Amino acid sequence: MSILVVGSVAYDSVITPAGRREDSLGGSATYFSISGGRFAQVHMVAVVGEDFREDHVTLLRHHQLDLSGLTTLPGKTFRWSAEYHMDNVNSRTTLDTQLNVFVDFKPELSSDQRRQPYLFLANIDPELQLNVLEQMEERPKLVAIDTMNLWIESKPEALAEVIKRVDVVFMDENEVRMFAAPHTGSASVMKAAHYLLDLGPRMAVVKRGDHGVVQFTRDSVFAAPAFPVESVKDPTGAGDSFAGGFMGYLAYSNDLSDQGFRRASVLGSVMGSFAVEDFSVDRLHTLNRAEATARFRALSDMIRFNPLEETEVLAWREGVIFG
Amino acid sequence: MSILVVGSVAYDSVITPAGRREDSLGGSATYFSISGGRFAQVHMVAVVGEDFREDHVTLLRHHQLDLSGLTTLPGKTFRWSAEYHMDNVNSRTTLDTQLNVFVDFKPELSSDQRRQPYLFLANIDPELQLNVLEQMEERPKLVAIDTMNLWIESKPEALAEVIKRVDVVFMDENEVRMFAAPHTGSASVMKAAHYLLDLGPRMAVVKRGDHGVVQFTRDSVFAAPAFPVESVKDPTGAGDSFAGGFMGYLAYSNDLSDQGFRRASVLGSVMGSFAVEDFSVDRLHTLNRAEATARFRALSDMIRFNPLEETEVLAWREGVIFG
Repeated sequence: MSILVVGSVAYDSVITPAGRREDSLGGSATYFSISGGRFAQVHMVAVVGEDFREDHVTLLRHHQLDLSGLTTLPGKTFRWSAEYHMDNVNSRTTLDTQLNVFVDFKPELSSDQRRQPYLFLANIDPELQLNVLEQMEERPKLVAIDTMNLWIESKPEALAEVIKRVDVVFMDENEVRMFAAPHTGSASVMKAAHYLLDLGPRMAVVKRGDHGVVQFTRDSVFAAPAFPVESVKDPTGAGDSFAGGFMGYLAYSNDLSDQGFRRASVLGSVMGSFAVEDFSVDRLHTLNRAEATARFRALSDMIRFNPLEETEVLAWREGVIFG
Repeated sequence: MSILVVGSVAYDSVITPAGRREDSLGGSATYFSISGGRFAQVHMVAVVGEDFREDHVTLLRHHQLDLSGLTTLPGKTFRWSAEYHMDNVNSRTTLDTQLNVFVDFKPELSSDQRRQPYLFLANIDPELQLNVLEQMEERPKLVAIDTMNLWIESKPEALAEVIKRVDVVFMDENEVRMFAAPHTGSASVMKAAHYLLDLGPRMAVVKRGDHGVVQFTRDSVFAAPAFPVESVKDPTGAGDSFAGGFMGYLAYSNDLSDQGFRRASVLGSVMGSFAVEDFSVDRLHTLNRAEATARFRALSDMIRFNPLEETEVLAWREGVIFG
């Protein structure tokens, strides 16, 4: 089955402990599509400016992405720049954001796009996410969304409306805590995830940077570790690459069982771990099947575990009672 | 088999988002022994002052701990006080440390203690750790140590000497990075863990707070998640309770295989998760076998995963080459 993604295509400038890169190809829809496109047909809906480079169009075409929804508007492509910090690659400072043509991004879906069975609404204004959802001809088989602290703070009601209508919500730990805090008043990620699930989604995927993700449903929890990358060059796009692998696996396998979702998260982790090994989409671009399969096996091995037999209990020395 | 632990017994005063507690029973040897004592005989070597309360001796006796190595010296028991922060229970500020009788802690092992097959050297001065190691009649079957940033900064050579002579090293992420940084110059936890393994130990157990632990050997990695506790009352002692469950399982099962160590980490996580559910050792004290077994099963389920079959590869759409 195939996937529709609505999100951003951007030119990113980043400074990381490994170096710096100016105006390199980025954006949520870009990372998602190149990652997910390895496993399923991805239809991109995004906007770029007149400065969008032809070799980047060629790169996206190379990945067999459907670019009929990639609109060019007068003006410049969305630009974002950030610096990542040495002691903790999970933290970053945004240096500059130039929305440019993204200001006028009002996705109008084609009749083909309206019928896609898998839908990923990347981190955009929740009102746009709602608008896209309303354009769909029928409820897709699976809808997943990403968001960020900006929307949690500025448009909590619109975001809650979106969340009520989707299946899977991707948030990082701080975001899910922030979203739930007015209601749960607690720092517990589990309580926050359950508050979110009570709104309607079947799954909350809580991202924890280089510690992997934890996916919560009403009655199960699965912790997918991150692959321990030796040298992180650029963390940009890790989350969207994760989402790409996650949705790509589901769309390919059409397996929405508990184990299907677990495989989706492990494959998402694999794709996220490759994304951060180089700047921009460089590593995702050259990645091949043998490398991805090997890392999938390595990550599976990181959680390989023989549980207790059904009737087995732990050894236990009872306390003694005195006097 | 049984375990010798050398560490602290303390009176802790803590402030957490859940409340505050003054002069409650704490210390690395205390948490370790009550946790590990559920699975194997634990011999405590520690020191207390004349103010150590009789009901706390009774509590330790209840857990069938060998207290012949618990010495009382003139003066007051080691006191420590700290505040944990609302937004992130992994971070804390030490408010006060009064070493008291701990200043004169020079463990002298009895002939029985010198022959223990499992040895845990809790977070104490690495020179004391070395001194204890040298008192052992023969090399124990397994030696594990804990440490902290204070020793990494103030006594790196002595600490390295200890590390060369032990089997398992417990450190948190920042500690292992800090220890390895002068040599690896990198923020990668994996590189840091491998630097540590190159010194001699067979395993580095890297603690990540409420994200669980990752255990590294030269040729394998295992990620044991933390059990997602709904409400953390007091994070004090989580690491030592983890170490207690870890060593307790190994000493009980005498299974030093890869899967044995994996079970040890999962059981360690279980014990750590109970420790933080209440102040001091209150929850560990009342914990029973059924509760521990149920949580062990729940944690096992959090990593239950069907890996790829031996000949299976990932679905993969190759890129197209143009022109």
